[in-house]
Amino acid sequence: MQSFVDVSGGVAAANGFKAAGVEAGIKYAGRKDVALIVSDVPANVSAVYTTNRVAAAPVQLDRERTVSGKAQAILANSGCANACTGEQGMRDARASARFTAEVLGIDESLVLVCSTGVIGMLMPLERLEAGVKSAASALSRDGGADAARAIMTTDTCSKEIAVQFTLDGRTVTLGGMCKGAGMIEPDMATMLAFLTTDAAVAPNALDAALRKAAAVSFNSLVVDGDRSTNDTLIVLANGAAGNREVVEGTPDFDRFTDAMRHVCVELAKKMAKDGEGASKFVTVRVNGATTDKDAAVAARAIAKSPLVKTSWAGMDPNWGRVIAAVGYSGAAVDDGRVQIFYDDVCAYDAGRVADAQTLAAMKEKMRKPEFDVTVDLHLGTGSAVVYTCDLTHGYITINADYTT
Amino acid sequence: MQSFVDVSGGVAAANGFKAAGVEAGIKYAGRKDVALIVSDVPANVSAVYTTNRVAAAPVQLDRERTVSGKAQAILANSGCANACTGEQGMRDARASARFTAEVLGIDESLVLVCSTGVIGMLMPLERLEAGVKSAASALSRDGGADAARAIMTTDTCSKEIAVQFTLDGRTVTLGGMCKGAGMIEPDMATMLAFLTTDAAVAPNALDAALRKAAAVSFNSLVVDGDRSTNDTLIVLANGAAGNREVVEGTPDFDRFTDAMRHVCVELAKKMAKDGEGASKFVTVRVNGATTDKDAAVAARAIAKSPLVKTSWAGMDPNWGRVIAAVGYSGAAVDDGRVQIFYDDVCAYDAGRVADAQTLAAMKEKMRKPEFDVTVDLHLGTGSAVVYTCDLTHGYITINADYTT
Repeated sequence: MQSFVDVSGGVAAANGFKAAGVEAGIKYAGRKDVALIVSDVPANVSAVYTTNRVAAAPVQLDRERTVSGKAQAILANSGCANACTGEQGMRDARASARFTAEVLGIDESLVLVCSTGVIGMLMPLERLEAGVKSAASALSRDGGADAARAIMTTDTCSKEIAVQFTLDGRTVTLGGMCKGAGMIEPDMATMLAFLTTDAAVAPNALDAALRKAAAVSFNSLVVDGDRSTNDTLIVLANGAAGNREVVEGTPDFDRFTDAMRHVCVELAKKMAKDGEGASKFVTVRVNGATTDKDAAVAARAIAKSPLVKTSWAGMDPNWGRVIAAVGYSGAAVDDGRVQIFYDDVCAYDAGRVADAQTLAAMKEKMRKPEFDVTVDLHLGTGSAVVYTCDLTHGYITINADYTT
Repeated sequence: MQSFVDVSGGVAAANGFKAAGVEAGIKYAGRKDVALIVSDVPANVSAVYTTNRVAAAPVQLDRERTVSGKAQAILANSGCANACTGEQGMRDARASARFTAEVLGIDESLVLVCSTGVIGMLMPLERLEAGVKSAASALSRDGGADAARAIMTTDTCSKEIAVQFTLDGRTVTLGGMCKGAGMIEPDMATMLAFLTTDAAVAPNALDAALRKAAAVSFNSLVVDGDRSTNDTLIVLANGAAGNREVVEGTPDFDRFTDAMRHVCVELAKKMAKDGEGASKFVTVRVNGATTDKDAAVAARAIAKSPLVKTSWAGMDPNWGRVIAAVGYSGAAVDDGRVQIFYDDVCAYDAGRVADAQTLAAMKEKMRKPEFDVTVDLHLGTGSAVVYTCDLTHGYITINADYTT
């Protein structure tokens, strides 16, 4: 197994990258809300966007721009999603990329823009422009933490990571940051995630590594089953490490993909742990399914079920809700064969139900801030893992009063 | 439009039916938990069962029995779902039908059994048998209200209805009762619903009317998106009214179907209003979809979204969450054409977003205990209606601590 050395610096940890996060007053006063990430030189880029058919203006713009395979800067703001804002929204997104390019002295087509926040609010463009100027003058190798803070919405903490490993005898760095705490569901979340690396990686290889990593991380994450209009995952690879360019089908590619997977899974876990109002981080594993797809369908149904999630919140060993969710997920299931475990305690064994002692043991496992729920369907070899959290009063409090 | 006269008596309102509800101590003390509904003579029967692949023992048993098209008694209990109880569960379901038949002196194959409550708990058969004996001796034309009370779980009120109308010059009665407050989702809910009529209705016609009525009522209902292992909807038609037998393709059939639809929609609305912790009853209408199926998919996504439901709870005019749900529902949508209304207030008009005054007007509409959210996609003629409720702290309180 590849080991990675944790380093500080987040999204600006890799050589040739700078970042900044500043207060621009987009929606709230007294908090950072504009982030800027810039590579010294144009970088190879790959991205994954929301599957929501209602895509925010910045998503539509970035989709056009990342086709070129090159980007140099990412502007992100929190507070205003610039979604469902019609033609004005598209004009605003383009304008923000334009003035960012001017301030940085780079080509406009190399600027990507990302937004998160309230849908249906027009972007306060003057405040955003002032923020960009301020961020550009604050850009530094130490700016990762500020940038991570500036993209938070209902997040209670900023989320960043960076690791180093060797490729072709060179030390390379891969760092990243993300935001997202609610409206989180596979394919994808209300999440923004930005990764940067100084590794030289060919466009196809970068894209392949990103998709593999996203599948087992951000796309295996459920908070509430909602999917946003703004989800964006971007990786920039600027080649500053000087390694031989990574191409697919090589040991270097496998090594780079492992690192990408590690970084994405760790960021995804941070998001589940910070799920709106979450008090429990739960890893749902489904094994023995007919297919991997069936396993994923069952795992997501468990992770999305309000009844299951509230039982976790109440530390209630109500495994019946877990099997009910599997039953309606659409996955093939025979309840005469199913086994359900809470950590290593078997709650249900092919028709044999938990006795009082077992229920007490399950309750004990559920007292911990993190536990696993594992379902073995005993039908085949399909498996899936989903990261999720419980559903608490905190979620209601946060979401019943978000715009006002 | 057909008009119906409301009458009292619920599930025992129709001639030739009796009902009772008694305390048997299945799970809790001091509450009715066993219901019995009996027709004087074998009746034509039609039923709709859960689509959950994990079906409780009583559902499996009833599925076999209703194939015959005849039934005379329904035994229902709350507290124990008899689901995921393996072969013992099936033996217990059969045994409960057997002793009910003995007590009533009818053929065992004419007894249907239904359970709702905690999954994975074995049925306390002796207590159930004692309850059946007690219920059998309490059977009466006035027992509908007790029966309706005996099937409640987290319901805060019992739910019954009965109407009279004329068929073939005869006064016929159609009554019903149901339970269900959580785990409610189209196709179907954790719900038990029992209908009785003294109309003479041919088996095919009874089945066709039931399916038409279920589609626009119980299958258009969302509380939390969970679907249970025990859902059952049964109608008994015993012909005591002496009308010419209703067959498909006749005005009588249309009249009977209208009545069935009315009764089912009213019962479904009662369930949504009593949704666990619900403070708002919301009717979601989607019009102008490419197809009816697309409209239904979009309406259900809105009704299931925790973010939308919490915004209703907070009386927060956050229509952006509504359009985001439509966007990820899978329905065809062009946000440049969509209109969204809260009652008659237009929140979003094809790219034009609500101003402060509109938001205030929306908030005013949301103060009411009932309001409509209407989405017009302006793509075609497909439409759908879904009945639902908000998501509140009450839901969390109820569900975080249900088995314990």
